[in-house]
Amino acid sequence: MKRPVKNAFEGKRALVTGGLGFIGSNLAHRLAMMETEVTIIDNLDPGQGGNLFNIHGIQDRVRVVHGDVRDAKTMEGLLKEQDYLFHLAGEGSHVGSMQAPEADLEVNALATLRILELCRKVTPGIRVLYTSSRQVYGRPQYLPVDEKHPLAPVDYNGVSKLAAAMYCMVAWQVFELQTTVLNLTNVYGPRMRVKDGRLTFIGWWIRQILEGQPLEVYGEGRQLRELNYVEDVVQALLLVAAEPRTAGQVYNLGGEKSISVLELATMLVMINGKGTCKQVEYPSNRRRIEIGNYTCDISKINAHVGWSPSVNLQDGLQLTLEFYRKHWQEYW
Amino acid sequence: MKRPVKNAFEGKRALVTGGLGFIGSNLAHRLAMMETEVTIIDNLDPGQGGNLFNIHGIQDRVRVVHGDVRDAKTMEGLLKEQDYLFHLAGEGSHVGSMQAPEADLEVNALATLRILELCRKVTPGIRVLYTSSRQVYGRPQYLPVDEKHPLAPVDYNGVSKLAAAMYCMVAWQVFELQTTVLNLTNVYGPRMRVKDGRLTFIGWWIRQILEGQPLEVYGEGRQLRELNYVEDVVQALLLVAAEPRTAGQVYNLGGEKSISVLELATMLVMINGKGTCKQVEYPSNRRRIEIGNYTCDISKINAHVGWSPSVNLQDGLQLTLEFYRKHWQEYW
Repeated sequence: MKRPVKNAFEGKRALVTGGLGFIGSNLAHRLAMMETEVTIIDNLDPGQGGNLFNIHGIQDRVRVVHGDVRDAKTMEGLLKEQDYLFHLAGEGSHVGSMQAPEADLEVNALATLRILELCRKVTPGIRVLYTSSRQVYGRPQYLPVDEKHPLAPVDYNGVSKLAAAMYCMVAWQVFELQTTVLNLTNVYGPRMRVKDGRLTFIGWWIRQILEGQPLEVYGEGRQLRELNYVEDVVQALLLVAAEPRTAGQVYNLGGEKSISVLELATMLVMINGKGTCKQVEYPSNRRRIEIGNYTCDISKINAHVGWSPSVNLQDGLQLTLEFYRKHWQEYW
Repeated sequence: MKRPVKNAFEGKRALVTGGLGFIGSNLAHRLAMMETEVTIIDNLDPGQGGNLFNIHGIQDRVRVVHGDVRDAKTMEGLLKEQDYLFHLAGEGSHVGSMQAPEADLEVNALATLRILELCRKVTPGIRVLYTSSRQVYGRPQYLPVDEKHPLAPVDYNGVSKLAAAMYCMVAWQVFELQTTVLNLTNVYGPRMRVKDGRLTFIGWWIRQILEGQPLEVYGEGRQLRELNYVEDVVQALLLVAAEPRTAGQVYNLGGEKSISVLELATMLVMINGKGTCKQVEYPSNRRRIEIGNYTCDISKINAHVGWSPSVNLQDGLQLTLEFYRKHWQEYW
C-alpha cells in the first residue's frame, strides 16, 4: 500500500452505517485499531449481514446504536460532529430486490438521499463514502469494466444502488458535500454472512464446504468474476476517505485476477482439502438477472490513491475458511 | 407522419396518469378523437400542471379519477383491463426537486416502481409508455445527445426520473413487461402551466409577454435548447405505443432545430408583435443545476417509428400565444 492513512483517522470521529455487517465491521476493526472514535448504526435486519459477534474484540472501543438508517431523527443525532461517514448499510440482494422492490428502493436510494440532506444540514464538512455495486453497469458491454462503462442495471437492486450513488454525486456537484462512491465487486472474507446465499454465493459455499455439502454451481459455471478480500476493500475505503481530492469521484474495485465460478469452487475444495462440486440447473429467477462475465478495470483508483488488491485469492480463501472453522457457531 | 395510428387505439382502453396536466391532457384529446376509452388519474397537485380546463371539450368522453399515482389500491383498480398506460404523472421541477428531494423520489421512482409491479400483477400484457427527461444525461459531453450518451444527472430530479426509466427497462428485461421510455426535451404548447416558472421557463415567458412584462433571460441566454410542440410529443407517444417492437427501448425526442434562450425570447417578442427582453443575473440555485447547451439526436426514434417534429417553432409559438390570449383566465 502506498500511503499510511493512520494520521487521517487517529482521534477522528467516524460513523459506520451497517457497521455490524460484513464490510462495516471489518472497517470498524481497522478504525478502532487506529484510535478513531467509531460509532456504528445497524438494524440487525435478519436478511442482512449484521451480527454482534462481528465486533468481538472491539466491543468496548466502539459505540453501537441499534437503529435504522431510514430514521431521520436518529441519523441527525449521530451525524453531528462526525468527520467521516462510511455509508455501507443497504440492501445488497439482487434476488431479494426483485421480490421486495419497494423496500430495496427505500433502504438504498431514499435513506441515502435523506442522509445526504442531513449531512448538509448538520455537518456539511463531513467526508462521505458510499459503497455501491458493479451491478450498476449491468451486463458488461466490454471487459474490463471501467467507470465510463454505460450504466444499465439488470435488476431493481442495481437501480436503487445507482440512484443512491448518483445522489452522492449531485450532492457533491451542487452542494459541495465531499462524497465518493466505490463500486464493489464480489467481496469475501471473515465476518461475511454465510447463513444462506441471499447476499452472495461465496458465503453460502463457505458454509456448505465446511459442513461437508457439495458446492452447487449454477449451469456450467463459466462466468468470470473478480473477488476482493474484505481487508483490501477496507483499505480502499480508508485510502479514498483520507484523500480529499477523491471527492466527487466514482471508483471501481476489482480483484488481482478473474476466475470462473467453477474454478473458484474447485479452488475452494482444494484449499479445504476435501469436498465436491455439483453442477445444477440455473434457477430461473437468477438466470434472468445474471450478468455474464465480469472483470474490473481498477486503474482509476490505482492512479488516484495507489490502491490495488494485496491479498491473493488462495490466501484470502484460506483465511476465510480458518475464520469460519473457528467461529462457525456464531454464523451458522 | 409516416403511419396512421388510429387502428391501434380505436375501441382500446388507455390510462393516462397526470392526464389533467400539460402533455397528458393533449394526449387525452387525441385519444378521445380516436375513440379510445380514456381514463385519467390526476391529483391536481397545485405545484404541477393539472387543470380541469385542460380537458374542456372532451370532459364527457373521458373518465377522470381524482387520485394519486402513489396509491396502490387506486392504481390497481384503474390498471385492470387497460391496453395502454401512458405514465406521465410525476415531478418535473428541477429546482423543486432540490428543495423537496424525498417527495421527488417518491412520486417519480417509487410510484413508477409500484405501478410496474401492479401491471405485472393485474395486466401483464399492457403497453407502458413512460416519459422521462433529457435531464438524465446531465451536462452534455457531446452534441447532439443520443441515447448512448453517458447518464449523469446534475440534479435530484434527473436521478429520480432516471431511476423510474431504469425500472421500466428492468421490468421489460426480467418480466417482459412491454415498456418504452421517451426522454423529453423542452415541451411547449397549449395547456401548459403558465402560472410561474416552476416547471418550465417557456410557460412563464408566455404569461409574461401576454401581460406586457419583460421576458427575463438568465445571464447571457446563450445556451442552446430544442423545443418540441406538444402535439409532436403526443404523436411520438402514439407512434411508439402502437409499435410493439419499441418495447424495451429508450428514445430521445428533439426539435427541428436548436435555438439559444435569448433568440427564443426575441422570437417570442417578434411573434407577439410587442414586448421586451431583460437580461438578469443567473439565480444561484438555477446556475448550479444548469446543463449548458443541449441538442438532441432523434435518429433512433425516426428510424424505428418514423417520428420527427412537424410543427416549426414559429408556428408552434404562434398557436400557443393564441391559445393563452383566448383562455388566459383559466391558467393565470
